[in-house]
Amino acid sequence: MTGEVPAGLQSESENLMLAEIREQPGAVARCLDRNEQTAKAFAEHIRSRGVRYAIIAARGTSDNAAIYAKYLFETNVGLPVALAAPSVLTLYETKLELHDALVIGVSQSGQGTDIVEVLRDAREGGALTLAVTNFADSPLAENADEVLLCHAGLERSVAATKTYTTTLAALAMLVAPLTQDDALERELKGVPDHIAGVLMTDDEIRAVSERYRYMTDCISVARGLNQCTAMEAALKLAETCYLVTHAYSGADLQHGPIAVVDRGFPCLVFNPEGRAHQQLLDLTAQLTERGAECLVFANDDAALRSGERGIRLPVNVPERVSPISYIVAAQLFAFHLARHRGFDPDHPRGLKKVTRTR
Amino acid sequence: MTGEVPAGLQSESENLMLAEIREQPGAVARCLDRNEQTAKAFAEHIRSRGVRYAIIAARGTSDNAAIYAKYLFETNVGLPVALAAPSVLTLYETKLELHDALVIGVSQSGQGTDIVEVLRDAREGGALTLAVTNFADSPLAENADEVLLCHAGLERSVAATKTYTTTLAALAMLVAPLTQDDALERELKGVPDHIAGVLMTDDEIRAVSERYRYMTDCISVARGLNQCTAMEAALKLAETCYLVTHAYSGADLQHGPIAVVDRGFPCLVFNPEGRAHQQLLDLTAQLTERGAECLVFANDDAALRSGERGIRLPVNVPERVSPISYIVAAQLFAFHLARHRGFDPDHPRGLKKVTRTR
Repeated sequence: MTGEVPAGLQSESENLMLAEIREQPGAVARCLDRNEQTAKAFAEHIRSRGVRYAIIAARGTSDNAAIYAKYLFETNVGLPVALAAPSVLTLYETKLELHDALVIGVSQSGQGTDIVEVLRDAREGGALTLAVTNFADSPLAENADEVLLCHAGLERSVAATKTYTTTLAALAMLVAPLTQDDALERELKGVPDHIAGVLMTDDEIRAVSERYRYMTDCISVARGLNQCTAMEAALKLAETCYLVTHAYSGADLQHGPIAVVDRGFPCLVFNPEGRAHQQLLDLTAQLTERGAECLVFANDDAALRSGERGIRLPVNVPERVSPISYIVAAQLFAFHLARHRGFDPDHPRGLKKVTRTR
Repeated sequence: MTGEVPAGLQSESENLMLAEIREQPGAVARCLDRNEQTAKAFAEHIRSRGVRYAIIAARGTSDNAAIYAKYLFETNVGLPVALAAPSVLTLYETKLELHDALVIGVSQSGQGTDIVEVLRDAREGGALTLAVTNFADSPLAENADEVLLCHAGLERSVAATKTYTTTLAALAMLVAPLTQDDALERELKGVPDHIAGVLMTDDEIRAVSERYRYMTDCISVARGLNQCTAMEAALKLAETCYLVTHAYSGADLQHGPIAVVDRGFPCLVFNPEGRAHQQLLDLTAQLTERGAECLVFANDDAALRSGERGIRLPVNVPERVSPISYIVAAQLFAFHLARHRGFDPDHPRGLKKVTRTR
């Protein structure tokens, strides 16, 4: 996906983040294609090992990918998934009993010290381990039994985009062979087209994002499989627009935080068709009744009409793969809003591409 | 702990939230005392069942208690803990394979429909189940193999305070007999005094909170065992002060969101002595260097001097029980700030005491 540059956007086109957002149809297609055999073989390995549950260790954007994997593995494989708290090992030096576990480390750079440590320790402790990273020769890859590579190409913008969507795709690749689910495999093959469809809404998202030039905070909301989308959207807004954005599952929002919502309060709602759709429709109505201004990303009329503004995304996107294309709309929104606010999304203040934490 | 009302606070004293904050030394002491035998017997049960991992299902404040339990169980027992995504069952109707699991449902009211459903389903599926609730005759209690009660007395303020700290105490009660750790049992018995010590800082917290009358957003930060404290502090500020507050683990903050922090940005930092102390000191220095204004809750000079303001909390509070008293400082901060902002913390707009979600 090279993406012709629309007239009047020449300066935008020099932006790394936008260029990388536009590379995603190709990057995801490559990721799906090149991991097919490895994913199938490793799924066989998982089955034969009698894994009882999975633990995923990740930080930042990768942690949002881990949330997707949790929902996808649990709803499709029935395998319970825990998100690791790396400090249990790095600060408290505790060894968990992980013999029955599949432990997955996710880090685009493969350099995250704490994530590498969790994986190395799990492997030594007898767990089956997997690395998901964009770098084959990274410490993370070296400390895992198997590696699924993003094949995203070098990501130069600090705000991760194509490494996020390819990580989602790589993790989803494991699920299809684990359940012998040909439908999921087919659905995944449609994702590059879904993303290309979302990219067609670029002009519309650029235009609508200007409305939020002066917002001071916002929340993002989704439920179920797209919980990761709300969280990653919030992270993109924090990184590129310096907005304190909190992501809520629709259910958690009702347990207290909905109190922050009053007249004019901006909410981003990600509501593709699927099992979470109706509940999120109801929640959008509830938010609107409180005076909130919802910007809804969806593909059906009811959802698009449920808020103040709607961005129509491609139709026929199965819910379980929808997070891989829906986030692209949020990436575009964060990118354009950052520019409207006069910020350079490629160089967020005080951030480096590789963050090493313990 | 009845707590004498300081002069000039008569109108405050009619407030339910403040009254319930002040009841906590007594409530936690009662919780520890009355659960001792049940906790010991149930720990024996967990051991004899050969539980391999635990899953905790909770929403809102109870979900923050679940985070505490995750760190405490993992660092002290070595038992991996996952936080449940209830929608996996309620929206996607997936049955997880839970034969080897301890499944804990946490809900002060015991009414949370989705949490009850998770527990019922887990029990039918062969898991060992535990309810932690303030109501012995609640649906949650009825659907569990065993119940640990908060013994907090009726909580009338919408913003949960005493049911949170007693839930932490009840969960910690399980850990001591699981590891035959007499030290933890002794440490827990000191908690009511720690809380009483925190309550002594009420005037100081009321005074310092006025400084934040006009802040528009803020973040709260901790690491490791007090991650729950940062999250619960953020929830209290959302519920009572209508502030979009995001809680970060110190490590996650560095993976992107630190970009939001610029000159004058308010950060609440919870930094008791312990394993996470030095890293959080370093992070506070980094935040301060970016111009952030840190309000630090701590008990040592280095931490108290590391930010713009410091609230000195009691000394000799072991890290693993510190979340049960440190949150009380955040409760007081949220309460007083709400009043400075002209809000009634007992009646957050649009919230009910019992929230039923699916």
